[in-house]
Amino acid sequence: MNQEITEITSAQNNLVKLARSLDKKKARNETLLFRAEGARHVLEGIECGAKLYGLLFSKNVASRPHVRELIEHAKKQNARIGQVSDSVLESVTHRDNAQNVVGIFHQNFGKLDDFTDLDLLVALERPKDPGNLGTIIRTLDSVGGQGIILLEESCDPFSTECIRAGMGSSFSVKIVKAKLDDFINWQNKNGFRLIGTSLKGSDLHTKTDMGKKTILLMGNEQSGIDDDLAGKCDALIKLPMKGRADSLNLAIATGVCLYEIWRQRDFNGRRIEGGQ
Amino acid sequence: MNQEITEITSAQNNLVKLARSLDKKKARNETLLFRAEGARHVLEGIECGAKLYGLLFSKNVASRPHVRELIEHAKKQNARIGQVSDSVLESVTHRDNAQNVVGIFHQNFGKLDDFTDLDLLVALERPKDPGNLGTIIRTLDSVGGQGIILLEESCDPFSTECIRAGMGSSFSVKIVKAKLDDFINWQNKNGFRLIGTSLKGSDLHTKTDMGKKTILLMGNEQSGIDDDLAGKCDALIKLPMKGRADSLNLAIATGVCLYEIWRQRDFNGRRIEGGQ
Repeated sequence: MNQEITEITSAQNNLVKLARSLDKKKARNETLLFRAEGARHVLEGIECGAKLYGLLFSKNVASRPHVRELIEHAKKQNARIGQVSDSVLESVTHRDNAQNVVGIFHQNFGKLDDFTDLDLLVALERPKDPGNLGTIIRTLDSVGGQGIILLEESCDPFSTECIRAGMGSSFSVKIVKAKLDDFINWQNKNGFRLIGTSLKGSDLHTKTDMGKKTILLMGNEQSGIDDDLAGKCDALIKLPMKGRADSLNLAIATGVCLYEIWRQRDFNGRRIEGGQ
Repeated sequence: MNQEITEITSAQNNLVKLARSLDKKKARNETLLFRAEGARHVLEGIECGAKLYGLLFSKNVASRPHVRELIEHAKKQNARIGQVSDSVLESVTHRDNAQNVVGIFHQNFGKLDDFTDLDLLVALERPKDPGNLGTIIRTLDSVGGQGIILLEESCDPFSTECIRAGMGSSFSVKIVKAKLDDFINWQNKNGFRLIGTSLKGSDLHTKTDMGKKTILLMGNEQSGIDDDLAGKCDALIKLPMKGRADSLNLAIATGVCLYEIWRQRDFNGRRIEGGQ
Protein backbone atom coordinates (compact mmCIF):
# COMPACT_ATOMS: atom_id res chain seq x y z
CA MET A 1 0.00 0.00 0.00
CA ASN A 2 2.90 2.31 0.54
CA GLN A 3 4.90 1.72 -2.57
CA GLU A 4 6.68 4.75 -3.95
CA ILE A 5 6.21 6.10 -7.43
CA THR A 6 9.50 5.71 -9.25
CA GLU A 7 10.68 8.59 -11.40
CA ILE A 8 12.05 6.87 -14.48
CA THR A 9 14.30 8.79 -16.83
CA SER A 10 15.86 5.97 -18.82
CA ALA A 11 14.24 4.09 -21.65
CA GLN A 12 16.35 1.16 -20.40
CA ASN A 13 14.57 0.95 -17.05
CA ASN A 14 13.24 -2.58 -16.46
CA LEU A 15 9.55 -1.66 -16.25
CA VAL A 16 9.87 0.42 -19.43
CA LYS A 17 11.70 -2.39 -21.20
CA LEU A 18 9.03 -4.85 -20.12
CA ALA A 19 6.23 -2.58 -21.39
CA ARG A 20 8.01 -2.18 -24.72
CA SER A 21 8.75 -5.90 -25.07
CA LEU A 22 5.04 -6.77 -24.91
CA ASP A 23 4.74 -5.97 -28.61
CA LYS A 24 6.45 -9.33 -29.08
CA LYS A 25 4.57 -12.61 -28.84
CA LYS A 26 7.51 -14.29 -27.15
CA ALA A 27 7.57 -11.74 -24.31
CA ARG A 28 3.79 -11.97 -23.91
CA ASN A 29 3.94 -15.77 -23.78
CA GLU A 30 6.74 -15.76 -21.24
CA THR A 31 5.24 -13.14 -18.93
CA LEU A 32 1.51 -13.72 -19.59
CA LEU A 33 1.18 -9.94 -19.54
CA PHE A 34 -0.03 -7.45 -22.15
CA ARG A 35 -0.07 -3.73 -22.67
CA ALA A 36 -3.00 -1.31 -22.90
CA GLU A 37 -2.54 2.32 -23.91
CA GLY A 38 -4.43 5.42 -22.89
CA ALA A 39 -5.89 6.45 -19.54
CA ARG A 40 -9.42 5.61 -20.60
CA HIS A 41 -8.61 2.08 -21.63
CA VAL A 42 -6.45 1.41 -18.58
CA LEU A 43 -9.34 2.57 -16.36
CA GLU A 44 -11.68 0.37 -18.41
CA GLY A 45 -9.40 -2.56 -17.61
CA ILE A 46 -9.40 -1.82 -13.90
CA GLU A 47 -13.17 -1.37 -13.81
CA CYS A 48 -13.63 -4.68 -15.60
CA GLY A 49 -11.48 -6.42 -13.01
CA ALA A 50 -8.33 -6.99 -15.05
CA LYS A 51 -5.27 -7.40 -12.85
CA LEU A 52 -2.75 -4.59 -13.20
CA TYR A 53 0.92 -5.49 -13.09
CA GLY A 54 2.38 -2.07 -13.81
CA LEU A 55 1.49 1.52 -14.68
CA LEU A 56 3.52 4.10 -16.56
CA PHE A 57 2.34 7.68 -16.89
CA SER A 58 3.76 10.88 -18.28
CA LYS A 59 4.84 13.38 -15.65
CA ASN A 60 3.00 16.00 -17.72
CA VAL A 61 -0.32 14.51 -16.70
CA ALA A 62 0.64 13.36 -13.19
CA SER A 63 -1.61 15.89 -11.47
CA ARG A 64 -4.73 15.26 -13.55
CA PRO A 65 -7.58 13.78 -11.49
CA HIS A 66 -8.13 10.71 -13.71
CA VAL A 67 -4.42 9.91 -13.60
CA ARG A 68 -4.39 10.34 -9.80
CA GLU A 69 -7.30 7.91 -9.74
CA LEU A 70 -5.38 5.38 -11.83
CA ILE A 71 -2.37 5.72 -9.53
CA GLU A 72 -4.58 5.00 -6.52
CA HIS A 73 -5.95 1.89 -8.21
CA ALA A 74 -2.42 0.79 -9.08
CA LYS A 75 -1.30 1.25 -5.49
CA LYS A 76 -4.21 -0.83 -4.22
CA GLN A 77 -3.23 -3.62 -6.60
CA ASN A 78 0.43 -3.37 -5.56
CA ALA A 79 1.36 -2.67 -9.16
CA ARG A 80 4.72 -1.24 -10.15
CA ILE A 81 4.28 2.46 -10.86
CA GLY A 82 6.59 4.66 -12.92
CA GLN A 83 6.44 8.33 -13.81
CA VAL A 84 8.21 8.92 -17.12
CA SER A 85 8.89 11.54 -19.76
CA ASP A 86 6.89 11.67 -22.98
CA SER A 87 9.92 10.48 -24.91
CA VAL A 88 10.22 7.39 -22.72
CA LEU A 89 6.51 6.67 -23.32
CA GLU A 90 7.02 7.12 -27.04
CA SER A 91 9.83 4.58 -26.88
CA VAL A 92 7.30 2.12 -25.44
CA THR A 93 4.45 2.63 -27.88
CA HIS A 94 6.56 3.48 -30.95
CA ARG A 95 4.19 6.35 -31.62
CA ASP A 96 4.68 10.06 -31.79
CA ASN A 97 2.27 11.84 -29.47
CA ALA A 98 1.99 8.68 -27.50
CA GLN A 99 -0.79 8.14 -25.03
CA ASN A 100 -0.05 9.63 -21.60
CA VAL A 101 -0.68 6.40 -19.76
CA VAL A 102 0.34 2.79 -20.36
CA GLY A 103 -0.96 -0.12 -18.30
CA ILE A 104 0.55 -3.58 -18.08
CA PHE A 105 -2.08 -6.19 -17.30
CA HIS A 106 -2.16 -9.91 -16.63
CA GLN A 107 -3.66 -11.92 -19.49
CA ASN A 108 -6.88 -13.66 -18.62
CA PHE A 109 -8.49 -16.43 -20.64
CA GLY A 110 -11.80 -17.91 -19.56
CA LYS A 111 -13.11 -21.45 -20.08
CA LEU A 112 -16.03 -22.66 -22.16
CA ASP A 113 -18.10 -23.38 -19.07
CA ASP A 114 -18.05 -19.66 -18.23
CA PHE A 115 -20.14 -19.16 -21.37
CA THR A 116 -22.81 -21.80 -20.80
CA ASP A 117 -25.57 -19.40 -19.74
CA LEU A 118 -24.82 -16.62 -22.21
CA ASP A 119 -26.96 -15.92 -25.26
CA LEU A 120 -24.65 -14.32 -27.82
CA LEU A 121 -21.15 -15.56 -28.58
CA VAL A 122 -18.80 -15.39 -31.53
CA ALA A 123 -16.57 -18.35 -32.38
CA LEU A 124 -13.70 -17.66 -34.74
CA GLU A 125 -11.87 -20.48 -36.49
CA ARG A 126 -8.17 -19.69 -36.75
CA PRO A 127 -8.42 -15.92 -37.25
CA LYS A 128 -5.11 -14.55 -38.48
CA ASP A 129 -5.36 -10.78 -38.42
CA PRO A 130 -5.16 -9.17 -34.97
CA GLY A 131 -6.73 -5.96 -36.30
CA ASN A 132 -9.77 -7.94 -37.42
CA LEU A 133 -9.94 -9.75 -34.09
CA GLY A 134 -9.80 -6.50 -32.11
CA THR A 135 -12.46 -4.93 -34.30
CA ILE A 136 -14.70 -7.99 -33.84
CA ILE A 137 -14.25 -7.77 -30.06
CA ARG A 138 -15.22 -4.09 -30.15
CA THR A 139 -18.28 -4.82 -32.30
CA LEU A 140 -19.42 -7.75 -30.17
CA ASP A 141 -19.24 -5.52 -27.11
CA SER A 142 -21.28 -2.89 -28.96
CA VAL A 143 -24.20 -5.28 -29.48
CA GLY A 144 -24.00 -6.59 -25.93
CA GLY A 145 -22.42 -9.93 -26.84
CA GLN A 146 -20.42 -11.50 -24.11
CA GLY A 147 -17.75 -13.85 -25.29
CA ILE A 148 -15.34 -14.81 -28.03
CA ILE A 149 -14.24 -18.38 -28.62
CA LEU A 150 -10.98 -18.79 -30.51
CA LEU A 151 -10.91 -22.20 -32.17
CA GLU A 152 -7.55 -23.87 -32.71
CA GLU A 153 -4.50 -21.73 -33.53
CA SER A 154 -5.47 -18.09 -33.59
CA CYS A 155 -3.73 -14.75 -33.67
CA ASP A 156 -3.05 -13.40 -30.19
CA PRO A 157 -5.95 -11.45 -28.63
CA PHE A 158 -3.41 -9.77 -26.34
CA SER A 159 -1.20 -8.44 -29.13
CA THR A 160 -0.82 -4.67 -29.16
CA GLU A 161 -2.58 -4.41 -32.51
CA CYS A 162 -5.58 -6.40 -31.27
CA ILE A 163 -5.81 -4.43 -28.04
CA ARG A 164 -5.63 -1.13 -29.95
CA ALA A 165 -8.36 -2.19 -32.39
CA GLY A 166 -10.46 -3.43 -29.46
CA MET A 167 -10.62 0.12 -28.06
CA GLY A 168 -11.16 -1.02 -24.49
CA SER A 169 -13.65 -3.77 -25.29
CA SER A 170 -10.95 -6.41 -24.85
CA PHE A 171 -11.56 -5.94 -21.14
CA SER A 172 -15.32 -6.38 -21.18
CA VAL A 173 -15.57 -9.27 -23.62
CA LYS A 174 -14.35 -12.62 -22.27
CA ILE A 175 -12.06 -14.71 -24.42
CA VAL A 176 -11.75 -18.49 -24.44
CA LYS A 177 -9.39 -20.68 -26.45
CA ALA A 178 -10.76 -24.10 -27.38
CA LYS A 179 -10.03 -27.16 -29.47
CA LEU A 180 -12.64 -27.93 -32.12
CA ASP A 181 -13.76 -31.21 -30.52
CA ASP A 182 -14.16 -29.68 -27.08
CA PHE A 183 -16.10 -26.81 -28.57
CA ILE A 184 -18.51 -29.06 -30.46
CA ASN A 185 -19.13 -31.24 -27.41
CA TRP A 186 -19.74 -28.29 -25.15
CA GLN A 187 -21.97 -26.53 -27.64
CA ASN A 188 -24.10 -29.65 -28.22
CA LYS A 189 -24.68 -30.07 -24.51
CA ASN A 190 -25.72 -26.49 -23.90
CA GLY A 191 -28.46 -25.79 -26.39
CA PHE A 192 -26.87 -23.14 -28.55
CA ARG A 193 -27.81 -22.57 -32.17
CA LEU A 194 -24.54 -22.71 -34.10
CA ILE A 195 -24.80 -20.40 -37.09
CA GLY A 196 -21.90 -20.56 -39.51
CA THR A 197 -21.17 -18.10 -42.28
CA SER A 198 -19.71 -19.52 -45.43
CA LEU A 199 -19.37 -18.71 -49.10
CA LYS A 200 -20.84 -22.20 -49.52
CA GLY A 201 -23.82 -21.30 -47.36
CA SER A 202 -27.30 -20.87 -48.79
CA ASP A 203 -29.37 -19.30 -46.03
CA LEU A 204 -30.05 -15.58 -45.97
CA HIS A 205 -28.97 -14.07 -42.65
CA THR A 206 -32.19 -12.10 -42.38
CA LYS A 207 -34.28 -15.26 -42.82
CA THR A 208 -32.30 -17.37 -40.38
CA ASP A 209 -33.55 -17.51 -36.81
CA MET A 210 -30.86 -16.15 -34.51
CA GLY A 211 -33.18 -14.77 -31.87
CA LYS A 212 -32.19 -17.11 -29.04
CA LYS A 213 -28.94 -18.47 -27.59
CA THR A 214 -26.69 -18.21 -30.63
CA ILE A 215 -23.06 -18.80 -31.47
CA LEU A 216 -22.03 -17.00 -34.63
CA LEU A 217 -19.22 -18.99 -36.21
CA MET A 218 -16.84 -17.24 -38.59
CA GLY A 219 -14.08 -18.95 -40.57
CA ASN A 220 -10.51 -18.04 -41.26
CA GLU A 221 -9.85 -15.01 -43.51
CA GLN A 222 -8.49 -17.12 -46.34
CA SER A 223 -10.09 -20.51 -46.09
CA GLY A 224 -13.41 -19.92 -44.33
CA ILE A 225 -14.97 -22.56 -42.09
CA ASP A 226 -13.52 -26.06 -42.14
CA ASP A 227 -15.88 -28.48 -43.94
CA ASP A 228 -16.31 -30.78 -40.94
CA LEU A 229 -17.21 -27.86 -38.73
CA ALA A 230 -19.62 -26.50 -41.37
CA GLY A 231 -21.42 -29.84 -41.19
CA LYS A 232 -22.09 -29.33 -37.49
CA CYS A 233 -23.81 -25.97 -37.94
CA ASP A 234 -27.56 -25.57 -37.42
CA ALA A 235 -27.56 -23.15 -40.35
CA LEU A 236 -24.98 -21.95 -42.85
CA ILE A 237 -25.60 -18.42 -43.96
CA LYS A 238 -24.04 -16.55 -46.82
CA LEU A 239 -24.20 -12.79 -46.84
CA PRO A 240 -25.66 -11.57 -50.13
CA MET A 241 -23.06 -10.22 -52.57
CA LYS A 242 -23.28 -8.07 -55.67
CA GLY A 243 -20.72 -6.13 -57.70
CA ARG A 244 -17.27 -7.55 -58.39
CA ALA A 245 -16.13 -8.19 -54.83
CA ASP A 246 -16.17 -11.89 -54.04
CA SER A 247 -16.03 -11.68 -50.28
CA LEU A 248 -16.24 -9.30 -47.36
CA ASN A 249 -13.57 -8.44 -44.84
CA LEU A 250 -13.95 -10.82 -41.86
CA ALA A 251 -14.69 -8.08 -39.33
CA ILE A 252 -17.28 -6.50 -41.65
CA ALA A 253 -19.06 -9.82 -42.23
CA THR A 254 -19.09 -10.43 -38.48
CA GLY A 255 -20.42 -6.92 -37.80
CA VAL A 256 -23.23 -7.26 -40.33
CA CYS A 257 -24.27 -10.62 -38.82
CA LEU A 258 -24.08 -9.32 -35.24
CA TYR A 259 -26.31 -6.37 -36.02
CA GLU A 260 -28.74 -8.68 -37.79
CA ILE A 261 -28.84 -10.92 -34.72
CA TRP A 262 -29.55 -7.92 -32.55
CA ARG A 263 -32.20 -6.65 -34.98
CA GLN A 264 -33.97 -9.99 -34.61
CA ARG A 265 -33.88 -9.38 -30.86
CA ASP A 266 -35.46 -5.92 -31.28
CA PHE A 267 -32.23 -4.17 -30.26
CA ASN A 268 -33.13 -5.30 -26.78
CA GLY A 269 -31.20 -3.45 -24.07
CA ARG A 270 -29.81 -0.72 -26.30
CA ARG A 271 -28.52 2.36 -24.55
CA ILE A 272 -30.90 5.28 -24.71
CA GLU A 273 -29.09 8.57 -24.30
CA GLY A 274 -30.17 12.18 -24.24
CA GLY A 275 -33.77 11.28 -23.54
CA GLN A 276 -34.34 9.65 -26.91
CA MET B 1 2.71 -3.02 -80.08
CA ASN B 2 6.09 -4.57 -80.38
CA GLN B 3 7.69 -3.47 -77.18
CA GLU B 4 10.05 -5.93 -75.64
CA ILE B 5 9.78 -7.37 -72.18
CA THR B 6 12.75 -6.12 -70.21
CA GLU B 7 14.51 -8.59 -67.95
CA ILE B 8 15.24 -6.58 -64.83
CA THR B 9 17.77 -7.87 -62.34
CA SER B 10 18.44 -4.75 -60.30
CA ALA B 11 16.23 -3.34 -57.57
CA GLN B 12 17.55 0.02 -58.74
CA ASN B 13 15.96 -0.23 -62.19
CA ASN B 14 13.78 2.82 -62.89
CA LEU B 15 10.48 0.98 -63.29
CA VAL B 16 11.16 -0.96 -60.09
CA LYS B 17 12.09 2.21 -58.24
CA LEU B 18 8.92 3.89 -59.49
CA ALA B 19 6.76 0.96 -58.36
CA ARG B 20 8.39 1.05 -54.95
CA SER B 21 8.10 4.82 -54.59
CA LEU B 22 4.32 4.69 -54.96
CA ASP B 23 4.03 3.83 -51.26
CA LYS B 24 4.79 7.51 -50.73
CA LYS B 25 2.12 10.17 -51.11
CA LYS B 26 4.61 12.58 -52.66
CA ALA B 27 5.46 10.17 -55.46
CA ARG B 28 1.78 9.40 -56.07
CA ASN B 29 0.94 13.09 -56.23
CA GLU B 30 3.78 13.83 -58.62
CA THR B 31 3.16 10.92 -60.97
CA LEU B 32 -0.63 10.48 -60.51
CA LEU B 33 0.04 6.76 -60.54
CA PHE B 34 -0.61 4.03 -57.97
CA ARG B 35 0.31 0.42 -57.42
CA ALA B 36 -1.88 -2.68 -57.31
CA GLU B 37 -0.53 -6.06 -56.24
CA GLY B 38 -1.49 -9.55 -57.33
CA ALA B 39 -2.43 -10.90 -60.76
CA ARG B 40 -6.13 -11.05 -59.88
CA HIS B 41 -6.33 -7.42 -58.85
CA VAL B 42 -4.26 -6.21 -61.79
CA LEU B 43 -6.60 -8.06 -64.14
CA GLU B 44 -9.55 -6.56 -62.26
CA GLY B 45 -8.10 -3.13 -62.97
CA ILE B 46 -7.69 -3.84 -66.66
CA GLU B 47 -11.20 -5.28 -66.94
CA CYS B 48 -12.62 -2.20 -65.23
CA GLY B 49 -10.87 0.04 -67.73
CA ALA B 50 -8.09 1.42 -65.52
CA LYS B 51 -5.13 2.61 -67.57
CA LEU B 52 -1.99 0.57 -67.04
CA TYR B 53 1.32 2.40 -66.95
CA GLY B 54 3.59 -0.51 -66.10
CA LEU B 55 3.62 -4.21 -65.26
CA LEU B 56 6.17 -6.17 -63.24
CA PHE B 57 5.96 -9.93 -62.92
CA SER B 58 8.08 -12.64 -61.41
CA LYS B 59 9.93 -14.78 -63.93
CA ASN B 60 8.73 -17.80 -61.93
CA VAL B 61 5.20 -17.24 -63.18
CA ALA B 62 6.01 -15.86 -66.64
CA SER B 63 4.59 -18.87 -68.43
CA ARG B 64 1.30 -19.10 -66.53
CA PRO B 65 -1.70 -18.42 -68.76
CA HIS B 66 -3.16 -15.62 -66.60
CA VAL B 67 0.21 -13.87 -66.53
CA ARG B 68 0.56 -14.25 -70.32
CA GLU B 69 -2.89 -12.68 -70.57
CA LEU B 70 -1.81 -9.74 -68.41
CA ILE B 71 1.30 -9.26 -70.54
CA GLU B 72 -0.84 -9.15 -73.68
CA HIS B 73 -3.08 -6.51 -72.10
CA ALA B 74 -0.02 -4.53 -71.06
CA LYS B 75 1.39 -4.66 -74.59
CA LYS B 76 -1.90 -3.41 -76.05
CA GLN B 77 -1.83 -0.47 -73.66
CA ASN B 78 1.83 0.26 -74.49
CA ALA B 79 2.69 -0.19 -70.83
CA ARG B 80 6.25 -0.67 -69.64
CA ILE B 81 6.78 -4.36 -68.88
CA GLY B 82 9.47 -5.87 -66.70
CA GLN B 83 10.24 -9.47 -65.77
CA VAL B 84 11.92 -9.58 -62.38
CA SER B 85 13.13 -11.94 -59.69
CA ASP B 86 11.06 -12.61 -56.56
CA SER B 87 13.56 -10.67 -54.49
CA VAL B 88 13.16 -7.60 -56.71
CA LEU B 89 9.36 -7.88 -56.31
CA GLU B 90 9.76 -8.20 -52.56
CA SER B 91 11.81 -5.00 -52.61
CA VAL B 92 8.79 -3.30 -54.20
CA THR B 93 6.05 -4.56 -51.92
CA HIS B 94 8.14 -4.81 -48.75
CA ARG B 95 6.59 -8.19 -48.16
CA ASP B 96 8.01 -11.64 -47.89
CA ASN B 97 6.28 -13.98 -50.30
CA ALA B 98 5.28 -11.01 -52.35
CA GLN B 99 2.61 -11.22 -54.99
CA ASN B 100 3.90 -12.45 -58.33
CA VAL B 101 2.55 -9.49 -60.25
CA VAL B 102 2.55 -5.75 -59.63
CA GLY B 103 0.65 -3.28 -61.80
CA ILE B 104 1.21 0.45 -61.97
CA PHE B 105 -1.99 2.28 -62.92
CA HIS B 106 -3.01 5.85 -63.63
CA GLN B 107 -5.12 7.40 -60.87
CA ASN B 108 -8.64 8.24 -61.93
CA PHE B 109 -11.03 10.47 -60.02
CA GLY B 110 -14.55 11.04 -61.30
CA LYS B 111 -16.76 14.10 -60.86
CA LEU B 112 -20.04 14.48 -58.96
CA ASP B 113 -22.06 14.65 -62.16
CA ASP B 114 -20.97 11.09 -62.96
CA PHE B 115 -23.02 10.04 -59.93
CA THR B 116 -26.27 11.87 -60.66
CA ASP B 117 -28.22 8.85 -61.85
CA LEU B 118 -26.91 6.34 -59.33
CA ASP B 119 -28.93 5.09 -56.37
CA LEU B 120 -26.43 4.13 -53.68
CA LEU B 121 -23.43 6.25 -52.76
CA VAL B 122 -21.29 6.69 -49.68
CA ALA B 123 -19.97 10.11 -48.74
CA LEU B 124 -17.14 10.20 -46.21
CA GLU B 125 -16.22 13.40 -44.43
CA ARG B 126 -12.45 13.63 -43.95
CA PRO B 127 -11.74 9.92 -43.41
CA LYS B 128 -8.24 9.47 -42.02
CA ASP B 129 -7.51 5.77 -42.04
CA PRO B 130 -6.69 4.27 -45.47
CA GLY B 131 -7.43 0.76 -44.19
CA ASN B 132 -10.94 1.86 -43.24
CA LEU B 133 -11.40 3.58 -46.60
CA GLY B 134 -10.30 0.50 -48.55
CA THR B 135 -12.58 -1.74 -46.48
CA ILE B 136 -15.51 0.62 -47.10
CA ILE B 137 -14.81 0.56 -50.85
CA ARG B 138 -14.79 -3.27 -50.76
CA THR B 139 -18.04 -3.38 -48.79
CA LEU B 140 -19.79 -0.83 -51.00
CA ASP B 141 -18.87 -2.91 -54.03
CA SER B 142 -20.23 -6.00 -52.27
CA VAL B 143 -23.71 -4.47 -51.93
CA GLY B 144 -23.68 -3.13 -55.49
CA GLY B 145 -23.08 0.51 -54.52
CA GLN B 146 -21.42 2.55 -57.17
CA GLY B 147 -19.53 5.52 -55.85
CA ILE B 148 -17.61 7.07 -53.00
CA ILE B 149 -17.53 10.81 -52.38
CA LEU B 150 -14.60 12.05 -50.31
CA LEU B 151 -15.53 15.34 -48.68
CA GLU B 152 -12.74 17.85 -47.99
CA GLU B 153 -9.30 16.57 -47.01
CA SER B 154 -9.27 12.80 -46.94
CA CYS B 155 -6.71 10.04 -46.76
CA ASP B 156 -5.53 8.92 -50.16
CA PRO B 157 -7.71 6.29 -51.87
CA PHE B 158 -4.69 5.34 -53.99
CA SER B 159 -2.37 4.64 -51.08
CA THR B 160 -1.01 1.12 -50.99
CA GLU B 161 -2.83 0.39 -47.73
CA CYS B 162 -6.17 1.50 -49.15
CA ILE B 163 -5.70 -0.44 -52.38
CA ARG B 164 -4.75 -3.57 -50.42
CA ALA B 165 -7.80 -3.29 -48.15
CA GLY B 166 -10.00 -2.63 -51.21
CA MET B 167 -9.11 -6.09 -52.59
CA GLY B 168 -9.74 -5.10 -56.19
CA SER B 169 -12.92 -3.12 -55.53
CA SER B 170 -10.99 0.15 -55.86
CA PHE B 171 -11.25 -0.45 -59.59
CA SER B 172 -15.00 -1.01 -59.76
CA VAL B 173 -16.14 1.69 -57.35
CA LYS B 174 -15.76 5.25 -58.67
CA ILE B 175 -14.22 7.86 -56.41
CA VAL B 176 -14.92 11.58 -56.42
CA LYS B 177 -13.33 14.30 -54.31
CA ALA B 178 -15.60 17.24 -53.47
CA LYS B 179 -15.82 20.38 -51.37
CA LEU B 180 -18.69 20.42 -48.88
CA ASP B 181 -20.55 23.28 -50.56
CA ASP B 182 -20.34 21.73 -54.00
CA PHE B 183 -21.54 18.43 -52.60
CA ILE B 184 -24.55 19.96 -50.86
CA ASN B 185 -25.54 21.93 -53.95
CA TRP B 186 -25.23 18.94 -56.23
CA GLN B 187 -27.04 16.63 -53.82
CA ASN B 188 -29.96 19.07 -53.39
CA LYS B 189 -30.45 19.35 -57.12
CA ASN B 190 -30.47 15.63 -57.76
CA GLY B 191 -33.06 14.22 -55.41
CA PHE B 192 -30.93 12.04 -53.15
CA ARG B 193 -31.88 11.22 -49.59
CA LEU B 194 -28.88 12.22 -47.48
CA ILE B 195 -28.68 9.89 -44.49
CA GLY B 196 -26.05 10.80 -41.91
CA THR B 197 -24.85 8.60 -39.09
CA SER B 198 -23.99 10.35 -35.88
CA LEU B 199 -23.64 9.64 -32.19
CA LYS B 200 -26.01 12.62 -31.87
CA GLY B 201 -28.53 10.97 -34.18
CA SER B 202 -31.83 9.63 -32.93
CA ASP B 203 -33.26 7.59 -35.80
CA LEU B 204 -32.93 3.82 -35.85
CA HIS B 205 -31.32 2.68 -39.11
CA THR B 206 -33.88 -0.08 -39.53
CA LYS B 207 -36.75 2.41 -39.21
CA THR B 208 -35.27 4.99 -41.59
CA ASP B 209 -36.33 4.80 -45.21
CA MET B 210 -33.25 4.22 -47.36
CA GLY B 211 -35.00 2.29 -50.10
CA LYS B 212 -34.50 4.83 -52.90
CA LYS B 213 -31.63 7.01 -54.19
CA THR B 214 -29.58 7.33 -51.02
CA ILE B 215 -26.28 8.85 -50.00
CA LEU B 216 -24.99 7.36 -46.77
CA LEU B 217 -22.88 10.03 -45.06
CA MET B 218 -20.25 8.94 -42.55
CA GLY B 219 -18.18 11.32 -40.43
CA ASN B 220 -14.53 11.38 -39.55
CA GLU B 221 -13.21 8.62 -37.26
CA GLN B 222 -12.60 10.99 -34.35
CA SER B 223 -15.03 13.86 -34.73
CA GLY B 224 -17.96 12.43 -36.65
CA ILE B 225 -20.05 14.56 -39.00
CA ASP B 226 -19.58 18.32 -38.91
CA ASP B 227 -22.60 20.02 -37.26
CA ASP B 228 -23.46 22.15 -40.29
CA LEU B 229 -23.44 19.11 -42.51
CA ALA B 230 -25.53 17.13 -40.01
CA GLY B 231 -28.14 19.89 -40.31
CA LYS B 232 -28.44 19.22 -44.04
CA CYS B 233 -29.24 15.53 -43.64
CA ASP B 234 -32.70 14.15 -44.34
CA ALA B 235 -32.25 11.80 -41.40
CA LEU B 236 -29.57 11.31 -38.76
CA ILE B 237 -29.28 7.74 -37.65
CA LYS B 238 -27.44 6.33 -34.71
CA LEU B 239 -26.61 2.66 -34.65
CA PRO B 240 -27.86 1.07 -31.43
CA MET B 241 -25.14 0.44 -28.86
CA LYS B 242 -24.95 -1.72 -25.75
CA GLY B 243 -22.08 -2.92 -23.56
CA ARG B 244 -19.17 -0.67 -22.69
CA ALA B 245 -18.05 0.30 -26.20
CA ASP B 246 -19.02 3.86 -27.02
CA SER B 247 -18.61 3.72 -30.77
CA LEU B 248 -18.03 1.38 -33.68
CA ASN B 249 -15.10 1.28 -36.06
CA LEU B 250 -15.95 3.50 -39.07
CA ALA B 251 -15.80 0.67 -41.62
CA ILE B 252 -18.00 -1.54 -39.43
CA ALA B 253 -20.63 1.18 -38.97
CA THR B 254 -20.62 1.78 -42.72
CA GLY B 255 -20.93 -1.94 -43.44
CA VAL B 256 -23.87 -2.38 -41.06
CA CYS B 257 -25.68 0.59 -42.65
CA LEU B 258 -24.97 -0.59 -46.21
CA TYR B 259 -26.37 -4.04 -45.53
CA GLU B 260 -29.43 -2.46 -43.89
CA ILE B 261 -29.95 -0.30 -47.00
CA TRP B 262 -29.72 -3.37 -49.18
CA ARG B 263 -32.06 -5.31 -46.87
CA GLN B 264 -34.63 -2.55 -47.37
CA ARG B 265 -34.19 -3.10 -51.11
CA ASP B 266 -34.83 -6.85 -50.74
CA PHE B 267 -31.21 -7.67 -51.59
CA ASN B 268 -32.16 -6.80 -55.11
CA GLY B 269 -29.67 -8.05 -57.69
CA ARG B 270 -27.74 -10.32 -55.38
CA ARG B 271 -25.58 -12.95 -57.01
CA ILE B 272 -27.08 -16.40 -56.97
CA GLU B 273 -24.45 -19.09 -57.27
CA GLY B 274 -24.48 -22.83 -57.38
CA GLY B 275 -28.18 -22.93 -58.20
CA GLN B 276 -29.23 -21.51 -54.86
